Amino acid sequence: MSAGVRIEDPTEDELRRSMVLKWGTVAPGVIPAWVAETDYRLAPVVAEALQRAVTDGVTGYPADEVGEGPLGEAYAGFAERRFGWRVDPSFVLPVADVTAGVRLAIDLLSAPGALALPVPAYSPQLGLGATTGRDTVAVPFVSEQGRAVIDLDALDAALGAGASTLVLTNPHNPCGTCPTRAELEAVRDVVVRHGARVVSDEIHAPLTLAGAEHVPYLSLEGTADHAVAVVAASKAFNTPALRCAQVVAGDEGTARRLASAPKPQNSSWSELGVRASTAAYEQGDDWLDALLVRLDQQRTLLTERLATDLPLARVRPLEATYLAWLDLRAYGHDDPAAVALERGRVRLAPGHDYHPGLAGHVRLNAATSPERLVEIVRRLGVALA
Amino acid sequence: MSAGVRIEDPTEDELRRSMVLKWGTVAPGVIPAWVAETDYRLAPVVAEALQRAVTDGVTGYPADEVGEGPLGEAYAGFAERRFGWRVDPSFVLPVADVTAGVRLAIDLLSAPGALALPVPAYSPQLGLGATTGRDTVAVPFVSEQGRAVIDLDALDAALGAGASTLVLTNPHNPCGTCPTRAELEAVRDVVVRHGARVVSDEIHAPLTLAGAEHVPYLSLEGTADHAVAVVAASKAFNTPALRCAQVVAGDEGTARRLASAPKPQNSSWSELGVRASTAAYEQGDDWLDALLVRLDQQRTLLTERLATDLPLARVRPLEATYLAWLDLRAYGHDDPAAVALERGRVRLAPGHDYHPGLAGHVRLNAATSPERLVEIVRRLGVALA
Repeated sequence: MSAGVRIEDPTEDELRRSMVLKWGTVAPGVIPAWVAETDYRLAPVVAEALQRAVTDGVTGYPADEVGEGPLGEAYAGFAERRFGWRVDPSFVLPVADVTAGVRLAIDLLSAPGALALPVPAYSPQLGLGATTGRDTVAVPFVSEQGRAVIDLDALDAALGAGASTLVLTNPHNPCGTCPTRAELEAVRDVVVRHGARVVSDEIHAPLTLAGAEHVPYLSLEGTADHAVAVVAASKAFNTPALRCAQVVAGDEGTARRLASAPKPQNSSWSELGVRASTAAYEQGDDWLDALLVRLDQQRTLLTERLATDLPLARVRPLEATYLAWLDLRAYGHDDPAAVALERGRVRLAPGHDYHPGLAGHVRLNAATSPERLVEIVRRLGVALA
Repeated sequence: MSAGVRIEDPTEDELRRSMVLKWGTVAPGVIPAWVAETDYRLAPVVAEALQRAVTDGVTGYPADEVGEGPLGEAYAGFAERRFGWRVDPSFVLPVADVTAGVRLAIDLLSAPGALALPVPAYSPQLGLGATTGRDTVAVPFVSEQGRAVIDLDALDAALGAGASTLVLTNPHNPCGTCPTRAELEAVRDVVVRHGARVVSDEIHAPLTLAGAEHVPYLSLEGTADHAVAVVAASKAFNTPALRCAQVVAGDEGTARRLASAPKPQNSSWSELGVRASTAAYEQGDDWLDALLVRLDQQRTLLTERLATDLPLARVRPLEATYLAWLDLRAYGHDDPAAVALERGRVRLAPGHDYHPGLAGHVRLNAATSPERLVEIVRRLGVALA
C-alpha cells in the first residue's frame, strides 16, 4: 500500500448529502447500518475519473462495442493481479448492475427450469424468479465452523428436480463467507452432473479480507462452458449510481450470445460507470488495499464490541464483505431490526429480507468509522437487552 | 425566452470527448448524423445540478421512495406548463430509461398477447417483442399530407387478432410526426373497443416544434385505466448517461402495481439522473425554448438544403424531434446510408434499422451547427448523385 493513500471518513452532514438512500432516508439521530454502501469518501482515482468525465460533458450514450475499449482490459488486469485469474478481455460485457447482469444471463443462457438459490440471499436475488418467469428453489446452507457452506445434497435434489441454474454468490452476501476452492469444486461437480448452468455473482470479490482467498468460479477447471461471472467495481468503490457492472463469459460462444442481446434487454449501462470502473480497476489497487486494512480493523472491532455488548449474538466469521450476519435469537425478538430502530435508533437490515420467514436475524453494515461502529453495537445491545 | 440563454456549439474536439457513441465511434473526417443526440453543450442548469451532485459525492443508490421526493413534482409542473397536462406527482415512477420503462409497463400491466407496433419504429422498440416474450405485429402508417398517421384498420385488425398492447410513440421517431388530438382520439377508440392497453413513449414531447402541439395520450378522456406514458428529460437535455426516465401512471392502482415491481425488474435508475431531470423540469424552460428556436432554424435550413442538393428526396414534415425521415428511393440505392458513409463520409441511420426490409430510406439527425448541417446535406447530395 502506498503511504499516501488513506480511507477518509466524511462528516455526518456530508454523508447525508452524498448517500441518499442509506443516510438520506433515516430520521435525524438514527445511525444507518443497513444498505450495502460504505461510509467512506470516494477513492481519489475514481473521483477524478468521474470529475473529468463530467467536465468533458460525457452525458450521452455509451459506445456499445462490446469487448473492445479499455474496460475489458482493465478488468482482466485487475482479475489477474487480485485473484490470479486470467480473463479474456473480449469476454467482458458491460451491464447496468450486477442484478441486471444476472437477469440477462439467465434470460439468454439458461434452459427453462427453476433457479436454485442458496438462502439467505440478498433481496434483489429473491425477486429474480418472478422477473425471469421461473420458480425459485431455496437451497439451504450447512454450517461448518460457523461458515455458510452450500448443502450439496439439497443442491443435488434441486437440480435433480429440474432447476436449471444455480445462482451462486461468491463471496456471499449476507453470510460473509468466502467459499474455498474445494467447496466450489464440489458445487461444480454437482452442477456438471446435472448439466445445469451457474451464474456466479462475484460483486463482493474485491472485498475479500485478510485470511481468506477469493476463488473465481470460472477459474475452476471445467466451468467455462456452463458459467458466467457477474462482477463490478461498484461495491468496493461505492459507485452504484454510475451504473456499470460486467458479465464475464467463460467462452467465446457465450460472449457472443450475451453481446447479441436485443437492445431493450441490455442498454442501460452508463459511460460514467465505464470510466469510473476502468479507473478503479487500473489504478485503484492502493486505495483498495487501504480499504481492506480498514475493513479488517472494523471486523476486529465488531467482534470485540459484540462480545461486550451482545454476548449472546452468534455471528458468522466475516471472510469477505463488510456485512455481518447476526443471529440474535437468544435475545427473544422476532424482528430485532425493528426493535433496534425503535429503541436503539440504529437501522439494520432485517433478516427476513434475506430469508423470508426467518426470525431473529439481522445484517449489520460495519463499513463506517470506528466510533460509529462502537455506537451502533452499543445501541443495539441496549435496545435488545 | 430570457435574453441570456444561448444554445452553444462545442468544437469538434469537445464533441469527440463528450459523445462517445455518436462522435467517438466514427472515423476522423466522418460527420456523424445518426444516433439521436444533439451536438449542443449541456443546459447550464443541468450541468450545474450534475456538477453539484458529483461534488457532493452522490454515487450511491437512489432513494427508492416512489412518488415522493422532488422528481414527481418537477415533472408535474413541467407537464402542466408545457403541455397543459395535469399529472399527479405520486403517479410518476423513476426508471432507468424509456425503453426500460416500456418493458416494465408491458411486463407488469399487459395481458398476454402480441405487441402492436407502428412501423417504422426506432430500433430498441423492434427488440421489445423478443425481450418481453411476445410477438410483434407491425402496424403500418398511412400518409396524410406526408404526415405518418396510424392505419386504424390495421390497428383494429392487429388488436382483433389478439395483440394486447399498442406501443405508441408520440411524437414519432423516426417519422417526426406529432399526432393530433383527433388522431389520438381515433386510436383510443380502437384500443378501447378491444380492451387493449397503450404504452405511450413520449420521450420526444419536449421537442415539439413551432406549429405543432403535443397532446399527451393520457390527457385524453377515457385513457387513464388502460395507458401509461413513458417520459424523460434525457432526450431534450441530452443526458442518457445519467440514467433516469419516468413512467407516468394513469391511476393510483397502476402506480401501485408499477411501484411494487420486484427489485431486479426496476432498480436501475441513478440519482444523478434524478437530480439532472429535476433541474431540467424545474429550471430548464428558458434553455428548452432556445433549443426549440434553434431546432426550428435547423429544420428550415434542412428543407432549403435538401431542395438544392437532394431535390428528389421526399421528407416527412418535421413537427417534432430533430430527426428527419428521408425517402431517397429516387436516387436508386438500396442502402443510401452505406453509400453516404462510403462516398460522402457522413454517417446516417439506415432506414432498415427502423423498418426491416425497407430500402432507400435514412434518418438524418439535424441537431448540430448550421454549418455542419449544410455540409452533411452537401456530402449526401454528392454521394448519392
